[in-house]
Amino acid sequence: MAVVERDVYGAVEGGGTKFVCLVGTSPDDIVDEITIPTTTPTETIGAVIEFLRRPRPGVRLVSVGVATFGPIDLDPRSETYGCVLKTTKPEWSGARILGPLARRLGVPIAWDTDVNGAVLGEARWGAAQGLDPVLYLTIGTGIGGGALVNGAPIHGLIHPEMGHLPVPIREDDTFPGICSFHGRCLEGMASGPALAARCGRPVPEIPADDPVWDLAAWYLAHGISGLVLTLSPRRVILGGGVMRQATLLPRIRRMLVEVLNGYLEAPELGERIDEYLVPSALGQKAGLYGAIVLAERARGAG
Amino acid sequence: MAVVERDVYGAVEGGGTKFVCLVGTSPDDIVDEITIPTTTPTETIGAVIEFLRRPRPGVRLVSVGVATFGPIDLDPRSETYGCVLKTTKPEWSGARILGPLARRLGVPIAWDTDVNGAVLGEARWGAAQGLDPVLYLTIGTGIGGGALVNGAPIHGLIHPEMGHLPVPIREDDTFPGICSFHGRCLEGMASGPALAARCGRPVPEIPADDPVWDLAAWYLAHGISGLVLTLSPRRVILGGGVMRQATLLPRIRRMLVEVLNGYLEAPELGERIDEYLVPSALGQKAGLYGAIVLAERARGAG
Repeated sequence: MAVVERDVYGAVEGGGTKFVCLVGTSPDDIVDEITIPTTTPTETIGAVIEFLRRPRPGVRLVSVGVATFGPIDLDPRSETYGCVLKTTKPEWSGARILGPLARRLGVPIAWDTDVNGAVLGEARWGAAQGLDPVLYLTIGTGIGGGALVNGAPIHGLIHPEMGHLPVPIREDDTFPGICSFHGRCLEGMASGPALAARCGRPVPEIPADDPVWDLAAWYLAHGISGLVLTLSPRRVILGGGVMRQATLLPRIRRMLVEVLNGYLEAPELGERIDEYLVPSALGQKAGLYGAIVLAERARGAG
Repeated sequence: MAVVERDVYGAVEGGGTKFVCLVGTSPDDIVDEITIPTTTPTETIGAVIEFLRRPRPGVRLVSVGVATFGPIDLDPRSETYGCVLKTTKPEWSGARILGPLARRLGVPIAWDTDVNGAVLGEARWGAAQGLDPVLYLTIGTGIGGGALVNGAPIHGLIHPEMGHLPVPIREDDTFPGICSFHGRCLEGMASGPALAARCGRPVPEIPADDPVWDLAAWYLAHGISGLVLTLSPRRVILGGGVMRQATLLPRIRRMLVEVLNGYLEAPELGERIDEYLVPSALGQKAGLYGAIVLAERARGAG
């Protein structure tokens, strides 16, 4: 007697400390989920493959989506396609991700950056449903952005690295910046480690009335204004650990309206700024759910 | 006896001083061309319609593309779709462009900004053939950018306005900027009028060894680095009157490599920068030829 199987996707979000994987078709239909610590590429990717290959009665894995920390090589014409590029994370520079997964799983696989995954997740099930173009920006240990434009994330020469935007320096700000490449870029001035270095204490311990939040809002608003002027997103979603400080978002909103100064005539950049610059709806799951969307797309292309 | 007619497109590039129109199918197949001075919307658009309606034996107009100065309303769901938005150009704020053309011509019409037109033209027949994503930036009376991403220009909340990017101020630069909205944004610091104001003479009269060119390169390289980090273009094309000063492009190239400081590991941003940051191949015709591409697309969608 034939067993009727339904089709499911594998979704993987690869981060610096853990890889989260699920088997399912949507946030409301998760068959299985696992969290794997990020150790060596061989061990971690091996555990991901073991999880995805596990026999599960009644379901058939048809494709896999992977959203991972970068930089990664997304160019199918490149010799290092499917690999992590040079990264500060020990052992992961040059690590092959896509190849082993494809060989051992035998299903179509799509991959993208964690932030491109996050914007796909938010546009499908989160804070930007149906919107395009749309921008997701995470402000945490680093600053990174993913944009959905004309139906797909942006892949190009490499992939966007929005955290390193040049920003004007506030006149009274003498902080030298912490970016090892650019010093006083957006990430160098307003990422979690930059704010911690400014205050001499970890971000969660910085009180809500510390003047550093106005400084952070100043840089983030300038960075976001540049992204808005470039991508014309219909909404901007903010995630990442630094945004957990509730005082920050309203400050960024006010500052963004001030920075743009009425140049772009849209109510979203004035009285409706609260609907335009919004917190992530999926939180830490945005990239993982986005990987489901990647898997769907891989299946279509496969 | 039936006359055999072949299909041709109408292409219109609308600028602040003139509207250039052609009938044809490509830069190598132009049936007719006209230049119309920009006066009032009624008079100018009337002359465009008259030109496009003119009977021409052997050809049949099947669609029209319009690339025009902005800001313009590109959102088909908007009440002011097809109109120019608020502009400093007398009489053109709110001018209806698309409606009269569609009514009088009876063919599908597509429209876009002049810079989005230019990037379409360059990607089809110019300096970026077949590349995507790709960026076109014009540095002239104003600074504006158009990007082709995932097969189409970016339209969103409004459309990109890349000239107004926030930029870091060079430490020794006391120039207050001339942008009436943002003061010291990219356009405020490095557009033609900004350079002229810095030097007290028109741009064409500024000698090649004037230190202002290093300043201009500094701001343009910072602006371009932000665009590269956001859009990850496979090539960046520079056009506009200010770029006619031949000393400027090599300075911007050197400065861009310096600003990015090796962060994006691609030969295009190092030893191959001369192939990456390139002058417009179509010059003043980029937008007009791009309007042919818009017309092709309008026909497909019509």
